[in-house]
This record gives sequence, structure tokens and C-alpha cells, in this order.
Amino acid sequence: MSGIDFPSPFTPAHDPHVLPIVGVRMATAAAGIKYAGRTDVLLMAFDAGTSVAGTFTQSACASAPVEWCKDLLGEGKARALLVNSGNANAFTGMKGKQSVQRSADIVAHALDVPPQSVYLASTGVIGEPLTADKFADVMEGLVGSLDGAPTRWVDAAKAIMTTDTFPKAASRQVDIDGEEITLTGISKGAGMIAPDMATMLSFIATDAAIAPDVLQAMVSKAVGGSFNRITIDSDTSTSDTVLLFATGKTLSETPITYIEDSRLGVFQAKLDELCLELAHAIVKDGEGLSKFVTVRVEGATSNASADVIARAIGNSPLVKTAFAGEDANWGRVVMAVGKAGEPADRDKLAIWFGAGGTEVRVAVEGARDPAYSEEAAASVMKQPEITLRVDLGLGDGAATIWTCDLTKAYVAINGDYRT
Amino acid sequence: MSGIDFPSPFTPAHDPHVLPIVGVRMATAAAGIKYAGRTDVLLMAFDAGTSVAGTFTQSACASAPVEWCKDLLGEGKARALLVNSGNANAFTGMKGKQSVQRSADIVAHALDVPPQSVYLASTGVIGEPLTADKFADVMEGLVGSLDGAPTRWVDAAKAIMTTDTFPKAASRQVDIDGEEITLTGISKGAGMIAPDMATMLSFIATDAAIAPDVLQAMVSKAVGGSFNRITIDSDTSTSDTVLLFATGKTLSETPITYIEDSRLGVFQAKLDELCLELAHAIVKDGEGLSKFVTVRVEGATSNASADVIARAIGNSPLVKTAFAGEDANWGRVVMAVGKAGEPADRDKLAIWFGAGGTEVRVAVEGARDPAYSEEAAASVMKQPEITLRVDLGLGDGAATIWTCDLTKAYVAINGDYRT
Repeated sequence: MSGIDFPSPFTPAHDPHVLPIVGVRMATAAAGIKYAGRTDVLLMAFDAGTSVAGTFTQSACASAPVEWCKDLLGEGKARALLVNSGNANAFTGMKGKQSVQRSADIVAHALDVPPQSVYLASTGVIGEPLTADKFADVMEGLVGSLDGAPTRWVDAAKAIMTTDTFPKAASRQVDIDGEEITLTGISKGAGMIAPDMATMLSFIATDAAIAPDVLQAMVSKAVGGSFNRITIDSDTSTSDTVLLFATGKTLSETPITYIEDSRLGVFQAKLDELCLELAHAIVKDGEGLSKFVTVRVEGATSNASADVIARAIGNSPLVKTAFAGEDANWGRVVMAVGKAGEPADRDKLAIWFGAGGTEVRVAVEGARDPAYSEEAAASVMKQPEITLRVDLGLGDGAATIWTCDLTKAYVAINGDYRT
Repeated sequence: MSGIDFPSPFTPAHDPHVLPIVGVRMATAAAGIKYAGRTDVLLMAFDAGTSVAGTFTQSACASAPVEWCKDLLGEGKARALLVNSGNANAFTGMKGKQSVQRSADIVAHALDVPPQSVYLASTGVIGEPLTADKFADVMEGLVGSLDGAPTRWVDAAKAIMTTDTFPKAASRQVDIDGEEITLTGISKGAGMIAPDMATMLSFIATDAAIAPDVLQAMVSKAVGGSFNRITIDSDTSTSDTVLLFATGKTLSETPITYIEDSRLGVFQAKLDELCLELAHAIVKDGEGLSKFVTVRVEGATSNASADVIARAIGNSPLVKTAFAGEDANWGRVVMAVGKAGEPADRDKLAIWFGAGGTEVRVAVEGARDPAYSEEAAASVMKQPEITLRVDLGLGDGAATIWTCDLTKAYVAINGDYRT
């Protein structure tokens, strides 16, 4: 089964509208890697002078394309990005390395750029050799149809989907020194890995002139507050990749070359916003989900401690199934706080469930809230977007993560098939 | 919904047959704490001179009964154990502490023993005050019907069940210095916590004369190799409790009082076996399970590293749903190895799925095994008990854990209800 059999309740009515980035052209093709009747290859071409930075999976078993990109980032220059869905080229041994090299060579030759400027990403099944011939077959057509139109971003978002049920793209603009800077990005997610592999990928471009090391600091910060704070099922793909490209078409007279540049603040804020929107879109298309859940932990002894507790709550199967059951089951939240291994005092805990501006305190000072209204809590739990807030009452540490519920549809998507 | 709607495929045909322990008498009653038409209270009475040791949940939000037992263990002497199902007396604040004190007083008065010798355990819903009146109502009947018959152990195992679908009990015997020593124990589990709360509890007794501190070392070791190596859903209850009682009826002339006693080896081996059988029974009654899965990790840089990786595999929702789908999905295993954060080299990994004496290698040296037979693997995956073996190829570290698959029935049991 695929995610398409279980459409997300958050599916937008229309394809996203995004803004073009000068210096970025795109084309997509159907190379028949795994899927029939849909695009599965994306080529992005960047004008000369484009900087690049990125973050990758922390997996010790990273895929061949991830290792390729990591090696390239030292240069900080990009001329192309080739992405395919349907095959992750992960755990494919020497064949995987050869395939990656050959894929870069095919793009480099077609665009007349160095192979070391060609970034690669793959998402799909693990362990199946990916033949670069599939790319060779469609490369001429791709290069011939490169275009920077905004609709191409939506085409790009569709070509990289696996168990995703809708394309994810967004834009932001910010004024710096009287120049309008644009950022546009796409993302895909769904589960974390699957027969229809569901790696998290995001590719973002801006027309600003920003040096690679500055770009790296910015993308690391933005990812830390967005993509690294979402969890569908606690599983980590071997292929997770976020790349940020800067074409240098704006601020070209006064490029940003050091991290202390005072102009960075507003840009970082917009990048953070964009990454958060793209990250939330991934959760809202989580495999089989029915609820989008914000987990907010406050009053911890430190931010790091709050983070561990928030993730313990967000990854707990029992908490996640309670949300699926629309049950304000704070007992399971206490359980998850307890198992996190961080400082917590049962008798100081307070727990709220909230939605649409209403917040219901269900527990306080080590026991059920005497004023707790089951009716009010039930009404909150019926909403599609719910915030669970936990105050540990110990200190000032706080953290937020975003997750979804665990439904029978998740099990069906990931368990109801035979390879 | 409760687990009973989804009976385990491992449900035994008959109630377990166990051996009596001299010095232990039991009685059960239906106190109407939550369930109708079944027993929900267990009273065990121990003869004078009984030693006790135990291990408890690591949760920072442990229940009131767990805190009570921890405080008592310093004495190392037990005369009674009172257990109820249906209400965990967890996260009940000051009321919980008062309820625990009063429960111990009721038992102490009825049996004419000190309250400090009365151990308590509760399993069931969290956050609901547990009134000790329920125990007072049935105490006279319980004390009047105390009996050491083997069938009482089965009655005891049934009284402590929550979402369990069958009672769990087992015995072992060992000869020491010509004396026959007996161990008998019960356990319950199912999920880890739930509306029908599913804490892990186990109570074991032996007739041997063993000092409390020696007993503590033995139970800690046994639990480390059994109950602490099983995982249903990675969630940790606030009430997990294992207690080991030693009545001192055998070896009474030559009690075991120090840990270096050479007679301990054979006893420890039997205790380890018994705990493992009781722990496996918990997994085999895991909420909604269809498969019992052994995860064996070898070739790690250390045993501790192997343990972390084995748990990452066993707790991965994607690995667990693959077992539910009878899919030898080694890609997900690679993913779980990768996310564990421990040393691993993709190109040295080998992975086997085995059952009933047959083992199929599906991956070797960073890629799919060229000799891999999909038919052979599919045949293994159809079996109810499957061993997943992973060789990291790095060192001598090894670890084994036991888990079950993740099915739609698990989500139904934990999500298909309204409080």
C-alpha cells in the first residue's frame, strides 16, 4: 500500500504558489526508476557563482549520495542538483559509489560543468542497485527543457515525492538594503523509510549573494529549529538531506561574507520561517496521520533536558495512539516524561491539551486537575491540530517538537504488503 | 477495546502447572476496583523469616506503591504482598501516598504483622485516586482463605492481569547440597501502560534461605538478562516491579549469606531461566502481536554498543511493522542500525532472518546477498517466532533483546476508545 490510499486530512486544496529564484532553472522527467506514470527525476541547474551549504542524516549507514554531497561541500560551489525518487541508492556497496560518480558525470557532461559541482540525492527503496543509465536516458530532454518558472518548483516538489500525498513548496521575501531577496524551497517526507521509501529531503534556493561558510551556519541553525524538530515515527532515514543554494543575483555588489554581518538577522528569520513551514508540511503528510501535534515542554532544568522529554513524548507509541483515539490521556504523557531519564518531579507536573485558542489543564501538582472538564478536553481532542503543553515546574528550560498521531493506516502503509 | 479482543497466537492450551513454595500462601478476591466479574486483588502471606529483594521502574515519575516498596527494601524482610489490577495509584499525589500507607495498615492489622513488612503493587489506570476501602472490604475474606496450593499461583497470575490475554507462571527446581530448592513466579505485561494499564509486574518466591543483600544481587542480575531485555513498544510504565521472596524453608541450616557462596551459581542459573521464561511470556502476550521476535546483534565494538543497536532495531516502528507484514525488510534494519548512534560500518554489515532452525542471509558486505532467496526468506517470515541476527563485523560485542511486531490490533487496543 502507499500513502495515497490514505490521503492526509491536511491536503491543501491547491498546488502551492511560489516565487521564482533568478539563477535557478529546473526540469523533471519520468525515468521509470520504480513508479509508473509519474515523474521521478529532478534536475536543477544553477548559474555560475552559486554557493551551497547543507545538512545530512546523522545515520552511521548514510547512503552513497549523502556521502557524495558531504565530500563536495568543502568547495561550497554548486552548478547542478540531480534528485530521483523510487530508489535510495542506499546500502548498495561499491555499485552505489560507482552509480553516484557516473550520475554526476552524466550531468556534468550534459551541462558542461565540473562533476564536483553536481549535487545528488536519492529517495526510495534501500538495497537495490540504482543504474545511472536511467539518468542518461532522460538527460538530454531534461537539459533541453530547463526553465525557472514558478510552476517548475511545484513540478520539482512532485517529482521527489514517495509516500507523500501532496507536494510541499513555499517562499519568503525579505528586504535588505532596499533589495528584495527571495527564498523558495521544496520538501518531502511522509514516514522515515519504507518500501516506498520516505526519506526527508528539502532543497531551498535564494537569489542573495552569501558566502558558503555563512550559508552553512544559517542552514544549520534553520534546520536545528525545524527539520530536526519533527518526528513521524522516531525512525531516521539513511538519506535525509537539506541543501541551501544561493545564486548571488541580489546583494551582488555587497555580498554577505561573514557571519557577524548585521543584515543576516532578517534573512535568517525568513529562512527559519521557510524551513519551519516546509517541515510542518512534512508532518502534516505523515504516513496515515489524522492529527498534527505540537509538543511543548516548559519548566525543565535546561533546554536540552526539555528537548529530550519533548521527544520522549512525541515518539511514544502510547501517546501517539491516544491522539489517534482523540483521548486526552495525560497518564501516558506522565509515563513518557518519566521514561525520558531527565529531571522531573511528579508532584510538580502540569499538563494541558489545547487547540484553536482553547487550552484545558488536565493535570496539576501530581494529580488530576480538580477543575478538569472532560467535555472541554474531548472538544479539544477532536480538532485536527492539537498542542500538548507540559510544565515540569523545575526551571526555565523549554523545547518544542512537532509530530503526528499513530494510526492503523500507518501500520497498513508500512505493514500491509509483501516485497 | 482490551487485549482480550485480540488473543495472542501464543496463548497456551492450558493454565500453567507450577510448584508450591513452602512458606507462601495466597488468596485472591474481586474487589470491583475497575473490572467486573473477575478477581483484581492478590494477597500473598509469607512465613516469618522471609527475605525480599526487588527491582523497579527507572521512571522519574514512579507510582506511590513503587516508592513505598523502595523505602521498605532496606529492611529486607517481607510478611505480605498486596497487588491490585485496574488502578495503578500513579500520579495521584498526596492521596496516593495516603492510600498506600492505609493499604499497608489494613494488611498489617489483618495478618498481625508490621506495616513495614507489607509490600504493595498496583497496575491499571493512572491518575485515578485508589481508595484503600476497596481492600478493607475484602481483607477478611482474603486472610481467611490463604492457601499454598499450586493452583493459587495460577489464581494469583490471573488476578494481576490487565490487557494480558493469558496468565503467566512458571517454576524451576535445583539441587543444592542434596536439598531440592524450588522457585515459582508469576508475571504480567501486555503493553507498557494503557487505559487498561499494562505495567510489567513479576513476583517470584523460593523456599531457599538467602540473605536479603545476596537476594538483591541475584534478582538484579536475573532481571538484567530478562525483563530488562524485552520491549513491546519502547514505553516504560511508572509501576514496573519485580520482587523476589525467599522463605528460608530449605538450606535453613546453612543459609546463603554472602555473594561469593559457591552454591549460588546453580541457583542463579535457574533464577535466570525462570525470569527469562516469565519475560518471554510477557512479550508473547504483547498487545496485538502476531510475531515473537529475537533481535541478536553481534560483532559490535562492545556489548553495550550491541545493546543500544539491538534496542534501536527492536523499538523501530518500521522494523516492527515489517515483521507484521511478514517482510524480510533488511533495509529498515540497516536504517535502525544507522540511527542508533553507535559505531557501524555499512560495508561490513550482514543480516540474517531465521526461524525453526533455518537462517537466511539477506545482506552481506554493504549490499544485498547475491545468493539471497526471496522464497526462503518469505518462508522464514511466515513463522510465528523469528530471529533477526545482525553482524556488524567490527568487534566481539553482542547483545540479545526480545520484542514483538507492531500491528493494527496494537493501535486498536490503544487508540480505539474514548475515556
